[in-house]
Amino acid sequence: MGRWEPDARQRLVRAALDLFSEQGYDNTAVAQIAERAGLTKSTFFRHYRDKREVLFGGQDELAEVLTGGIAGAPEQAEPMAAVEAALVAVGGWFTEEQREYGSQRQAVIGSNLELRERAALKMAGFAVAMKDALHRRGVPELAAVVAAELGVLAFERAYGTWLETAGDWSEVARRSVAEVRAAAAELG
Amino acid sequence: MGRWEPDARQRLVRAALDLFSEQGYDNTAVAQIAERAGLTKSTFFRHYRDKREVLFGGQDELAEVLTGGIAGAPEQAEPMAAVEAALVAVGGWFTEEQREYGSQRQAVIGSNLELRERAALKMAGFAVAMKDALHRRGVPELAAVVAAELGVLAFERAYGTWLETAGDWSEVARRSVAEVRAAAAELG
Repeated sequence: MGRWEPDARQRLVRAALDLFSEQGYDNTAVAQIAERAGLTKSTFFRHYRDKREVLFGGQDELAEVLTGGIAGAPEQAEPMAAVEAALVAVGGWFTEEQREYGSQRQAVIGSNLELRERAALKMAGFAVAMKDALHRRGVPELAAVVAAELGVLAFERAYGTWLETAGDWSEVARRSVAEVRAAAAELG
Repeated sequence: MGRWEPDARQRLVRAALDLFSEQGYDNTAVAQIAERAGLTKSTFFRHYRDKREVLFGGQDELAEVLTGGIAGAPEQAEPMAAVEAALVAVGGWFTEEQREYGSQRQAVIGSNLELRERAALKMAGFAVAMKDALHRRGVPELAAVVAAELGVLAFERAYGTWLETAGDWSEVARRSVAEVRAAAAELG
């Protein structure tokens, strides 16, 4: 088995998700994931810090892309238009491969309290990142907080729809933001 | 030391928060908390399942009171008015004693990743509880989700204000809901 494993990450994700689904997250060791993937433990650790990172890796990069989407929105864009730009900007993340893993990943997370806690903090982290980015555009604090929360909600809903329907991410994301925004307007 | 310790819970909370602040949450054992409180370990375990529960106990009861507040709002109340009723309903929770511990508790949670994850899931749990209660009142799904998210946001902000200013909870909560609601309306 060579050091150069071009598809190692993908094989590790596949193996990890299958094992987590079959025998539970808590009962799965890194050594088993590596073995199932036909790789060594040290190859695993070149790609992931631990088994949890297989499920949550890339969070900081995703937050950066969201932030960049808001920063790069036209100067005159309203807060929710900037939020929409953030969601559209992460479209590159949502590949066919991601979609294939997505539902299985969500089922694994849903079945484990520790992972649900981790996922909740991840979403809270996205909200803070978007809020800060909005604030840097001059959006007042409260409006930035509310817009960011609505953005995370729209993101979660868009992600669920995208997993189910395999639609175009940008379209799904835009529709989700529009729906959440309309609902917020009606409540206000 | 008798089995009957009328103020045991309060002494355990006090001891736990002091130890968590002094030496960190991870470095604090249940035995130390009990010792600091002048109680036995078995007394600790009569009150709390583990040291984490000292920080997060009462979550289910709080969710129930929020739910009850929404269910008990006047039939014709709009979703955000029902959310306001939920926040006001938890006022009984916010005693002077709670306020005394609140800031220290928040600092302990803020300094520990595992506790921040737990806190994020707690808030997500409140959102689900409020959403379900709104849905049972006939509020359409998306409106219920958005109203519940805005409600949690208003709750968190009200709690922060209440810790800082020692104002009347009902007043603080009502103002917070009104502010968040106005911000959402403006974004929509």
